Amino acid sequence: MAKLQLALDFSMLKKAVVVAQKAAPYCDWIEAGTPLIKSEGLEAVRMLKMRFPNKTIVADMKTMDTGSFETGLAAEAGADVSTVCGAADISTIKGAIDEGRRRRIAVAVDLINVPAEKWKAIDALKPDYICLHVGIDQQHEGVDPLKLLRKLKVKSKKIVAGGINAQSAPEVVRAGAEVVIVGGAITKAKDPAKAAKEIKEAMEKA
Amino acid sequence: MAKLQLALDFSMLKKAVVVAQKAAPYCDWIEAGTPLIKSEGLEAVRMLKMRFPNKTIVADMKTMDTGSFETGLAAEAGADVSTVCGAADISTIKGAIDEGRRRRIAVAVDLINVPAEKWKAIDALKPDYICLHVGIDQQHEGVDPLKLLRKLKVKSKKIVAGGINAQSAPEVVRAGAEVVIVGGAITKAKDPAKAAKEIKEAMEKA
Repeated sequence: MAKLQLALDFSMLKKAVVVAQKAAPYCDWIEAGTPLIKSEGLEAVRMLKMRFPNKTIVADMKTMDTGSFETGLAAEAGADVSTVCGAADISTIKGAIDEGRRRRIAVAVDLINVPAEKWKAIDALKPDYICLHVGIDQQHEGVDPLKLLRKLKVKSKKIVAGGINAQSAPEVVRAGAEVVIVGGAITKAKDPAKAAKEIKEAMEKA
Repeated sequence: MAKLQLALDFSMLKKAVVVAQKAAPYCDWIEAGTPLIKSEGLEAVRMLKMRFPNKTIVADMKTMDTGSFETGLAAEAGADVSTVCGAADISTIKGAIDEGRRRRIAVAVDLINVPAEKWKAIDALKPDYICLHVGIDQQHEGVDPLKLLRKLKVKSKKIVAGGINAQSAPEVVRAGAEVVIVGGAITKAKDPAKAAKEIKEAMEKA
């Protein structure tokens, strides 16, 4: 059964927690988004882990250097999953994956703006997850994660992100995603609980 | 006269401030490093701006998405300079530069792990600075910023980072850097004030 990851791309932790509290019953993974971590620090991860001890907490670190050090910081804050950028040097990605193993947390390599030629080399490092991610700025330019997902031939488990909603989530699941990341379609909804429930149910029917 | 930027790549703000206090008399720019921002949040930037109101404060955001939003957050925290990754989508880099202009702060595009083929397209966006940056993980693999700097033909002002010390700093200045970033050679020195003074004096003689 594919998992639903709630991305909390807020700059204020209080707002993020209020929305998470509403949507959590329908979400499996809860993510401290990159702007939230940069704004509030790893306190965001500590807080989410404390409030939602039974959920998988993702620190969207988007590490670009010192892969081992930053992954260790995320682990110490209580993250179950930390992310590293596929756009980083291979040594940084490897450092993050190795540190994840040592700390017994999962590492997801984020393919945001990574050319397809590099996907194989990343997969060869055997990360726990590869995250096919069409960034918010790229979404505004019309890039479609589903099209990219169909091209992504990797052995690692797949996470998919990029403007996904109740309409597109089932198709993303059918195309092989084990984790579907949803941000705005839940966090910007008038009723985040209802929005999360609809997406989760749509995924279950897929 | 080339400027010396002190990179505070700590995970604890208190330690960063203690070192900054010692080295500040010899530094022009003071940088909240990426791991420091992720650990302590933008409070790190607010604190540095408060403690060092006459220095140029750099938020090493290493933005990979939502270029406008993250640059705005850095500006609100009091940063005079914010960084965006050259590895990001062009729309993200442009978003950061445009937001920097609106907020009247400078934006530096960080070339960490960006192939030389993309340098021209970045320069064409006319960022305030382009930062030639050999990451810590890449330094361990022997990549030399000076060699790359000699290849970097851009119109934007140049910042250079990557394991620079009192020996290499003058050569980096002669090769065209307007800002030289030093981290470990000051922050890991027994006497950070003495280390910073030596580097600043070496740069002045260059």
